[in-house]
Amino acid sequence: MALEITIERSAQLKQKPDENKLGFGQYYTDHMFILEYTEGKGWHSGRVVPYQNISLDPAAKVFHYGQTVFEGMKAYRTEDGIKLFRPKKNFERLNKSNARLSIPHLDEELAYEGLIKLLDVDREWVPSAEGTSLYIRPFIIATEPALGVNPSLNYLFMIIMSPVGAYYAEGVNPVKIHVESHFVRAVAGGVGEAKTAGNYAAGLNAQEEAKDRGYSQVLWLDGVHRKYIEEVGSMNVFFKINGVVVTPQLNGSILNGITRNSVITLLKHWDVPVEERRISIDELIEAHRNGQLEEAFGTGTAAVISPIGELSYNDEKYVINEGKTGELSSKIYDTITGIQKGTVEDPFGWLVSLD
Amino acid sequence: MALEITIERSAQLKQKPDENKLGFGQYYTDHMFILEYTEGKGWHSGRVVPYQNISLDPAAKVFHYGQTVFEGMKAYRTEDGIKLFRPKKNFERLNKSNARLSIPHLDEELAYEGLIKLLDVDREWVPSAEGTSLYIRPFIIATEPALGVNPSLNYLFMIIMSPVGAYYAEGVNPVKIHVESHFVRAVAGGVGEAKTAGNYAAGLNAQEEAKDRGYSQVLWLDGVHRKYIEEVGSMNVFFKINGVVVTPQLNGSILNGITRNSVITLLKHWDVPVEERRISIDELIEAHRNGQLEEAFGTGTAAVISPIGELSYNDEKYVINEGKTGELSSKIYDTITGIQKGTVEDPFGWLVSLD
Ligand SMILES: Cc1ncc(COP(=O)(O)O)c(C=O)c1O
Ligand SMILES: Cc1ncc(COP(=O)(O)O)c(C=O)c1O
Repeated sequence: MALEITIERSAQLKQKPDENKLGFGQYYTDHMFILEYTEGKGWHSGRVVPYQNISLDPAAKVFHYGQTVFEGMKAYRTEDGIKLFRPKKNFERLNKSNARLSIPHLDEELAYEGLIKLLDVDREWVPSAEGTSLYIRPFIIATEPALGVNPSLNYLFMIIMSPVGAYYAEGVNPVKIHVESHFVRAVAGGVGEAKTAGNYAAGLNAQEEAKDRGYSQVLWLDGVHRKYIEEVGSMNVFFKINGVVVTPQLNGSILNGITRNSVITLLKHWDVPVEERRISIDELIEAHRNGQLEEAFGTGTAAVISPIGELSYNDEKYVINEGKTGELSSKIYDTITGIQKGTVEDPFGWLVSLD
Repeated sequence: MALEITIERSAQLKQKPDENKLGFGQYYTDHMFILEYTEGKGWHSGRVVPYQNISLDPAAKVFHYGQTVFEGMKAYRTEDGIKLFRPKKNFERLNKSNARLSIPHLDEELAYEGLIKLLDVDREWVPSAEGTSLYIRPFIIATEPALGVNPSLNYLFMIIMSPVGAYYAEGVNPVKIHVESHFVRAVAGGVGEAKTAGNYAAGLNAQEEAKDRGYSQVLWLDGVHRKYIEEVGSMNVFFKINGVVVTPQLNGSILNGITRNSVITLLKHWDVPVEERRISIDELIEAHRNGQLEEAFGTGTAAVISPIGELSYNDEKYVINEGKTGELSSKIYDTITGIQKGTVEDPFGWLVSLD
C-alpha cells in the first residue's frame, strides 16, 4: 500500500476496567482507526487517533437511509502473544456487504493494516483473564449530508475495540430459544446476507418479546414459507440429527458466518457427516419426536458455540439433550477456543499473530 | 405540555439559496430542533438551536444496529401565510414506526410544538417560487454507546428543514418505472410498514440498476409470491383499470402514505370507484393487453403525484396512456397542490396554518 497511516497517540490513557466485569461492548480502548472516502478521491487519510466522538451533519445519510455495514471479530492474548482469528475473512465479508449496500469497495489490505496499527497502539487492552478477549468492530457509515434517496458520495470507515468478558460465567451453558412465527428478519432478495444495521433493528421487537417470555434469543424462519430454519439472533445454527450435523445452506438471507465455516471445516476434518441444506421446523420437530434430535447449537464470534437446551414453537416446548450441552458441541467449543488460546493445534492456519 | 422549549438563535444567518435551483435536500435552514430521551427520565431538553453538526460516540447504536425512524412533510407559502399539510398524521405515523423499531413513544403534541417553534424561527426559509416548499425531516436516532444488540437506552429526536424545488421543472412529467423481479424491499412480518432507515438502504442496489437501464424508479413486488404490487421507491402506487382506481391494500409491508390516504379520500369525495386490495403484476399486464390499464401514478409527499408513462417487466415494456399524464392523475395533482397553495377549497381541513 502506498497509502500512509498516521498515528496520533492519546495524551491521557483511560483506566482499564476490571477484567472480571467486562460484559460485552461496554468499554472502549484508547484509540480508534479512521479512513475516509470522498467521491472522486477514493479512500484516504487513514489514521489511528484517540477514541473520540465523531461530528456529523444531522442530514448525514446514515441517520436517514441506513447505508452502513459492519464486522465483528476478536483478538486473543495467548502465551505466544496476541492473535487474531481468521481476520481476513471479516474484511472479505465486509466488502460483500458493501456491494449489497451500494458502498464503495474497500481495499482489504489497507483496512487490515489499519487494524494491525490500531491493535499495536492499544495492545495493552487485550485482556488476559480466562475467556476474555478484545472485540473488534470495523464499520462503515454514509456521511454525505443530502436527503435524496441514493448512495452517499462520502463515507467513514472506522474500527473501534472493546475488551469483552467470558460469554459464559461458569462454563458453557445451554440457552432457551424461541422459534419466531410472526416476525421475519430477512427474505430472499433482501439484505439478510449483508452485515448491515437494518437487519438488527428489524429483529428487536421479536427479541424483546422472546426475552419477556424467558427465552434468550429468537430462531428465525424464512420469510417466504415461514418454515425453513434461518439463523439465531447473531448466530448461525446447527442441529445434530441421528448422527448427522445439518445447518441451513447459504441461501442469500442468512449471514455467511465465519464460525459457521470453521465448524463445518472442523467436522469434515473429523469425518463427522455434515450437510448444508434446507431444514424445516417440521423436520426438527419430527426428529425430536423420534428421539433423533441429539444436539443443537448456535455459532458466532461472540460465544463461539452456544448450545440450545430448549426450543419453543407454537406454544410447545422441545427440550434437547435433557437441556445439557451435547458431547459434540463441547468438543467443537473446546477445539475452537483452544485454537484461539493457542493451547490446541491449529491445522488450518486460522490464527494470525499480531507480531 | 409542561415541558418548555427553549430557543437559541443563530448569531449568523446563512445566505438563502436561489429559489430556482433548490433541488431536493441540498440546503438546510438556520436552525434545527432537538429533543433528548434518557432512560428513566423520558424525553427532555426540547430546544431550537442553530443548525449544527451532532457529536456522537462511534459506538452509538444508530451506526451499528440501525435503530432509527423518520418522517417527511412540507410547509408551503400561500397568499394566506405559511401552511402545513396534515402534519399530525406524520407524528402519528412516527410513533407507529417507533413501536416497530422498539423506540420509546414520543409525545406527539410536544414534537408538533417543537416543529411549530422551529418553523417560526426559520419562517423566512419557506420559499415562494411556484412549486417550491420547505421540506421537513423529523427523525430519531439511537445514541447509546453500547454494542449489545438490544434497544438503545438513549435517543435524539431532531427536526431539520430544507427548502426544495419544484419536483417537475416544466409541469408534471410521466416517469418510466422498472418492475423489480430480483431484489425485494420488504416482506410481511418485517419492517416495511415502518419509515425506518434500513428499508431505504435495502432498495439502493435495485434502484441503481434501474437507473442504469434508463428507469427512474423501481416498482417492488411482494417478497413471498413475487407477484403482488407493493409500492414505488418513496411512493405508493395507484392504477386506473377500466374506470376503477385500485391501489395495494395496507398489508404491513408497504408504507401507509399520507398522500395515498388523501388521494383515496378525494376519489371517494368525487364518487370515483376506488379499491384497496391485492393487485398482481399479471392482472396489470392483462389489463394493459385489453386496453384497460388507463392510468398509473405514484403518490408521495415529494412529488404529490408522479404519473407512470411506462412499466418494464421481464424485458417487456408496457406504455401507459401513450406515455402521457392521464386526466384523473392531472385532476388529483391540481387539486392537492391547489389545496396546498390555498387556491383550491379544502373541504377536509387538511391545511394547518402556522400563525
Ligand atoms: C446475523 C448473524 N448471523 C450469524 C453471525 C455469526 O457470524 P460469525 O461467526 O462470523 O461471527 C452473526 C455475527 O457475528 C450475525 O450477526
Ligand atoms: C417507502 C415509501 N412509500 C410511500 C411514501 C409516500 O408517503 P407519503 O405520502 O406520506 O409521503 C414514502 C414517502 O414519503 C415512502 O418513503
